[in-house]
Amino acid sequence: MEKEIYLNYAGTSICKPKPMIDALCHYLQKNQWPNHNRSFVPDANAHFIFAGREQVGSFFHVRDASNVVFTANITTSLNMILHGLLQPGSHVVVSRLEHNAVMRPLHLLQEKRGIQVTTLACDWQGRLCGKDLEEILETKPNMLLMTHASNVLGTIQPIREVFQKAREYGVITVLDTAQTAGYLPIHMEADFIDVLAFTGHKGLQALSGIGGFVLRPEIAEIMEPWLTGGTGNFSHDLTQPAVMPEKFESGTLNAVGIFSLSESIKYIEEIGLEQIRVKESALTRRFLDGIGDLPVSVLGCLDERERVPLVSLISEKIPAGDLSFRLYNEYGIMTRSGLHCAPAAHQVAGTFPGGAVRFSFGYDTTEEEIGIAVRALRELTT
Amino acid sequence: MEKEIYLNYAGTSICKPKPMIDALCHYLQKNQWPNHNRSFVPDANAHFIFAGREQVGSFFHVRDASNVVFTANITTSLNMILHGLLQPGSHVVVSRLEHNAVMRPLHLLQEKRGIQVTTLACDWQGRLCGKDLEEILETKPNMLLMTHASNVLGTIQPIREVFQKAREYGVITVLDTAQTAGYLPIHMEADFIDVLAFTGHKGLQALSGIGGFVLRPEIAEIMEPWLTGGTGNFSHDLTQPAVMPEKFESGTLNAVGIFSLSESIKYIEEIGLEQIRVKESALTRRFLDGIGDLPVSVLGCLDERERVPLVSLISEKIPAGDLSFRLYNEYGIMTRSGLHCAPAAHQVAGTFPGGAVRFSFGYDTTEEEIGIAVRALRELTT
Repeated sequence: MEKEIYLNYAGTSICKPKPMIDALCHYLQKNQWPNHNRSFVPDANAHFIFAGREQVGSFFHVRDASNVVFTANITTSLNMILHGLLQPGSHVVVSRLEHNAVMRPLHLLQEKRGIQVTTLACDWQGRLCGKDLEEILETKPNMLLMTHASNVLGTIQPIREVFQKAREYGVITVLDTAQTAGYLPIHMEADFIDVLAFTGHKGLQALSGIGGFVLRPEIAEIMEPWLTGGTGNFSHDLTQPAVMPEKFESGTLNAVGIFSLSESIKYIEEIGLEQIRVKESALTRRFLDGIGDLPVSVLGCLDERERVPLVSLISEKIPAGDLSFRLYNEYGIMTRSGLHCAPAAHQVAGTFPGGAVRFSFGYDTTEEEIGIAVRALRELTT
Repeated sequence: MEKEIYLNYAGTSICKPKPMIDALCHYLQKNQWPNHNRSFVPDANAHFIFAGREQVGSFFHVRDASNVVFTANITTSLNMILHGLLQPGSHVVVSRLEHNAVMRPLHLLQEKRGIQVTTLACDWQGRLCGKDLEEILETKPNMLLMTHASNVLGTIQPIREVFQKAREYGVITVLDTAQTAGYLPIHMEADFIDVLAFTGHKGLQALSGIGGFVLRPEIAEIMEPWLTGGTGNFSHDLTQPAVMPEKFESGTLNAVGIFSLSESIKYIEEIGLEQIRVKESALTRRFLDGIGDLPVSVLGCLDERERVPLVSLISEKIPAGDLSFRLYNEYGIMTRSGLHCAPAAHQVAGTFPGGAVRFSFGYDTTEEEIGIAVRALRELTT
């Protein structure tokens, strides 16, 4: 093993943009150590948080950045959204491709509040069958929540069409962008999104520990606080303030995480989302072509334009866990095997409970690395 | 104004230990940028998280570090603890000095679950009167939650005695260490603590965005999950795993925050808690002596041994907000005025709703800075 190859970008963007890391270290070294340069220190965090809010808001095309809420990660965002919007008896519709960050809170709310969960039918590649959508919307559910792309199958969902339909029926639309932010363009208004949950550390290439959500003001108004506590204002009042973003932001924020997110979004915008998508999509195509004649089954569709840059597969010869282990041990290739915290997606693909091996690519992935991964798969699976 | 003086350490330790910042920047520069040195990259985060758990566990004298749970901040910890342990009809006892990070979740739980909240009597300096404690414990409350020291009055609570008594009655003891971790020694067993909530960015001198709690295994077993989602294991199960720490840790953790916390605790242990306490206590004494003849009223007791290194005060001549504003504008001295997210503590002190100005000191505060603050107060209040 000469060099390790990281192919788990769908898990986390382990290597962060150099301009972001440099800016971060510069800030940490300059402002955090006493007597060095204390000026503006207390305001610096407030400034970065404000700037981060604006940056995220503009990235997702939000009109008023006070509707950008920061959390520790997208799991916290999704918990807050679900607990805040689903009341006893509420009815929520989800796809079959949701992550446990959605399904476990929903399971808890089924037990605690008797909410009703309906699942949209889809084919084995994760494509919505479409026939049942309108029928379900007719029943006036409270919320339609969908992952923008499956972290197992890679399948991109036709959010704009589905959410437009939901909006017509007055159903709250919630988008999980864990696998798409930083890869696909996402537009709050044009895509009919009421609430958009995001995480910093994957496609947005920020540090881990920062995530959040963005929501329309009408939804902010009806959503109940889940995390409550000190907000630094209205301190006399034991009720959580109703103003945004304080309504959903209690306690000290991760200022350094927000700083990293601001800088990494700047980096992404400088490269351009289109350029990122073209490159990562080409890497995915190259990988799919390379393994085309191998005795492996790829989950999801084979058209790279319909998927995010990840490919899960199973081998006829070797179980997923063993394959992933040998890829690392013998070739230094880091993949992710198992159920990827999304058991239902594996049921859709027919790979439950055995799981699959997921290869996922980032902007820093090279064609050479793809080549090495393909050769390794050839040696291990034939 | 020649130099700014930071006297809001009770808010956050704005200037972080240089060895921690250096280690952090070294790690960020070395391991996060592709092709530089990819070795161990994915394991690095897991390693830091493991090491951080051990470090925090040992700092608070916990036997098994799997009972250390990381969260985004102490507010999240307290929400998780209260929502996880208080069921419909539960009875919780608190001091009158609690922060809104406790009182707002309790207020929500009063509305949602009809929990009962009882407040312990105390004198105007925040000292428990003691007479009613046993009477209240006789009623078999479910939980006794106390802040270890008031963020307004500075008063340190006799945790060991009170919690020992509570333990005798089988009452769950919860300690909020926001103002004491990194200043007072805290011992899970010797102090009869069942659950201990901490934050990284104050006395522990880590970055903001990292906090957590530590709990006894018996409590972990009965506490219900509040934040649920992907844990990377038991993925087939829609119920949150019962194993620690996954039961309470869903989603991607703040690895860089945990790294900073590990390093800052190392830094604190190298200096020694005793040394920190002696120095900061002497600074507090010096400040109290300096303002002894001024027409200001100090909240809480005047004995620096009974308080953490913060002093809140009001002037006869100038309202708190104006005083804080002028201290900064004319002298570059950064304090915190208002209700400090703890309105009840101001009611105890008789400074509600006008608030007070809080001066708080850290290990990096100098005697010269105390002198400047005292002179500024003399000029503004006489």
